[in-house]
Amino acid sequence: MTAAELLDTLAFDRDGLIPAIAQQHDSGEVLMLAWMNRAAIDETLATGRVCYWSRSRQSLWRKGETSGQIQRLVEFRVDCDNDCLLLLVDQKGVACHTGRRNCFFTAIRDGEAKTIAEVEVDPAKLYGA
Amino acid sequence: MTAAELLDTLAFDRDGLIPAIAQQHDSGEVLMLAWMNRAAIDETLATGRVCYWSRSRQSLWRKGETSGQIQRLVEFRVDCDNDCLLLLVDQKGVACHTGRRNCFFTAIRDGEAKTIAEVEVDPAKLYGA
Repeated sequence: MTAAELLDTLAFDRDGLIPAIAQQHDSGEVLMLAWMNRAAIDETLATGRVCYWSRSRQSLWRKGETSGQIQRLVEFRVDCDNDCLLLLVDQKGVACHTGRRNCFFTAIRDGEAKTIAEVEVDPAKLYGA
Repeated sequence: MTAAELLDTLAFDRDGLIPAIAQQHDSGEVLMLAWMNRAAIDETLATGRVCYWSRSRQSLWRKGETSGQIQRLVEFRVDCDNDCLLLLVDQKGVACHTGRRNCFFTAIRDGEAKTIAEVEVDPAKLYGA
C-alpha cells in the first residue's frame, strides 16, 4: 500500500481530526498529544516539520513557529484502528508551552498531585515579553 | 493538590471522555491510545488495573478481561491542559488485539505503508476460537 492509500484509510473524528502522540525518537519520552487534520498531515509529511491543527485557534499550528521549539519528523506511524497517530520526532528544546520538556509533568503519587518536572526554559523567552 | 482535586480539573470532551496514552513503564514503548471516562479513571486508580471506556461497545473495558493481556498501572500522569492522560503501565503479553506488542505497527517508509512489527500471539488464542 502506498502512503497516500494509507492516509485515505485514516478515521478522522466528526471534527475532521485525529489524535497524534509525539514521542522523542531516541529516548522514548512521550512529549505531548495534539491533533491533526488531513492538511496538517500532508504538510508534515511534505516538509518533515511537524504541523498540527490548533483546536483553540482553529488553524494550522506549525509547532515552534513562535517559540522556535520545532519538531522534526523522524517517522510517521498509524495504529491498528487507523484512528491514532504516533509521530517519532526530534524535539528542539522543550515541547511544552510551560517551558518543560514534555507536557505530562503532573503525576499522582501517594494520593497527591505532584509536579515531577522542572521548567527548563522561561516561557516569556519562548513567546516574547 | 490532592489526587481527587486534580481529577476534578480534567477536561473531558463532549462525550465525557479523555484520551489516555499507555506507555510501557520501563522500555518507554508506546503501546496504544484509548479513552477513559471518570468511572474508568476511578476504577483504574482504585484497583491498579487499567480500565478504559470502549467507544464501540459503550461500556467499561477492563483491559485484558477477555484476552488476559492486562495492564498494571505504574503511574498516572496528566498533561498541562488537563485534557490528556499518560498511563505508565506494565503490559502483560501484547497490547494490540492483532497480537502485536503495540498498536502502532504501520509506518510510512519510502512512500510506502510498511508493517514493522510481527504478530507475537495468535489472536484466536487471545479471544477464543
